[in-house]
Amino acid sequence: MPQNTAAADFMSDYIIAPDPTATRLTRAVIGVDEHGDEVTTNVVEERPLTIFLNAREIVTAMTIGDYPNHLAVGFLRNQGMLSPDDQITGVDYDGDIDTVVVRTEIETDYEDKLARKTRTSGCAVGTVFGDMMEGLEGLTLPKAEVNTSWLYALAAKINRTPSLYLEAGAIHGTVLCQGDRPLVYMEDVGRHNAVDKVAGWMRAEGVSGEDKILYTTGRLTSEMVIKCAQMGIPVLVSRSGFTAWGVEIAQDIGLTLIGRMRGQRFTCLAGADRLIRDMDPAHAAPDEKKQRRKGGTE
Amino acid sequence: MPQNTAAADFMSDYIIAPDPTATRLTRAVIGVDEHGDEVTTNVVEERPLTIFLNAREIVTAMTIGDYPNHLAVGFLRNQGMLSPDDQITGVDYDGDIDTVVVRTEIETDYEDKLARKTRTSGCAVGTVFGDMMEGLEGLTLPKAEVNTSWLYALAAKINRTPSLYLEAGAIHGTVLCQGDRPLVYMEDVGRHNAVDKVAGWMRAEGVSGEDKILYTTGRLTSEMVIKCAQMGIPVLVSRSGFTAWGVEIAQDIGLTLIGRMRGQRFTCLAGADRLIRDMDPAHAAPDEKKQRRKGGTE
Repeated sequence: MPQNTAAADFMSDYIIAPDPTATRLTRAVIGVDEHGDEVTTNVVEERPLTIFLNAREIVTAMTIGDYPNHLAVGFLRNQGMLSPDDQITGVDYDGDIDTVVVRTEIETDYEDKLARKTRTSGCAVGTVFGDMMEGLEGLTLPKAEVNTSWLYALAAKINRTPSLYLEAGAIHGTVLCQGDRPLVYMEDVGRHNAVDKVAGWMRAEGVSGEDKILYTTGRLTSEMVIKCAQMGIPVLVSRSGFTAWGVEIAQDIGLTLIGRMRGQRFTCLAGADRLIRDMDPAHAAPDEKKQRRKGGTE
Repeated sequence: MPQNTAAADFMSDYIIAPDPTATRLTRAVIGVDEHGDEVTTNVVEERPLTIFLNAREIVTAMTIGDYPNHLAVGFLRNQGMLSPDDQITGVDYDGDIDTVVVRTEIETDYEDKLARKTRTSGCAVGTVFGDMMEGLEGLTLPKAEVNTSWLYALAAKINRTPSLYLEAGAIHGTVLCQGDRPLVYMEDVGRHNAVDKVAGWMRAEGVSGEDKILYTTGRLTSEMVIKCAQMGIPVLVSRSGFTAWGVEIAQDIGLTLIGRMRGQRFTCLAGADRLIRDMDPAHAAPDEKKQRRKGGTE
């Protein structure tokens, strides 16, 4: 099968793919290169988005600006500020003032807790991480088996997908996958925003995580592992490396954690007993140079 | 001159260099590779550190754990919560409960503002970015000239410096430099923490920024550009790419912004008229494979 047909084939897997032609997301900037020659280069946009939960201003995130509603709902969900039981009655984005207001039927537990916290110690910034850890209590992930052939197929498809990364660099990607198919590929300047947008889409569409795989270009830190678990997704895969705490949490909660996934290679530091080795790594496609992620550690 | 002597030579430039042998900063973890073979791999530690400004809990940062005092002071300074005029009377780190308390002689303007903000709208999380932008008002950076030979020398030295990155990956680095000499090289799981630790060190040592260059492995986002400017450093260099807003702010405040610095190549998107081209790029050393940063976009 010729290369181009194969490319078209896997693009039809996507429900949402990046739109590298969206003029609102990148900007052409003129500069000079190492020889002093003028160069025009595309860079990604970065704009503030202030997220409100009902009447409360929660955070100002820096984002490329697509899918603000998914970002807001996913952020609140992944921070444990919005529980699965909270009924969302509206998500209102106002592009003129860069705000999204997420409205719920009744005041959330988080708002109640915030009000109490504010009365006692003045500010609740420091509680965010504690709330995230709390969200893991009692959480059990399904013991999902993973075919290694899926991992290679996903990496190859994702690396070949036209993206803002290939267009302008300096951006992170997160892809919700099922088996060997990438379904929803979100990008953002903040690596957590890309994950949060996937979480917001899942909530809006009523999609559950138990039969999914989450692929990220970012590092496998504690926060990334916790977010994946809160989304109910039992498998997390990355091109990048690990932190010790990310590994520890994944082992504790039964999440399969695969990092340093490049070409034929990967390292699995949690859940290796759930990998089904149905493909010889020697048959995996090597990374092509132009698809390799540049950039430092993420 | 033989390679090893040259290596030893540039290491003496450092006042603080990474300590990849520090056992507290990395952990050996057992996993499996793509063939199902057991592998032992080093991963960086990641632990919470809660920063207090006097009696107020400000934030819980995730950090590798070295230089907590510099991280706390640098964070508060770079967020505009601690002004140059605030007199620090003590910085107390308690490793048992992972906290640092930064004490000032009198209550800071930030605490006063926080108290007012808390009374009126409940929480001040959303003010952080506004405070950072405020810190730029009236700021002018010196028109520092930069020899391109320095950039190549710095990149070569920094890439060859033994680091946690080369040891365990998944970590960011920020290096305070002067001319072609790297002086202080901080690493951390959070890319902003590495910058903040440099800022804290500068404040502790009374070192000013006007004749310095800041090198980072991270992307050149608005927040990175603002932090560099607040540190009084007129030149910011990165291996990674740009965001549009980062470029715009750098152009507005007269900061020289150089990105995508790899081997012989770089792109300058602000302050190109202050570059002195004293070296033919063809004479720059190419990146060696083992020194290339792996990992996604940062």
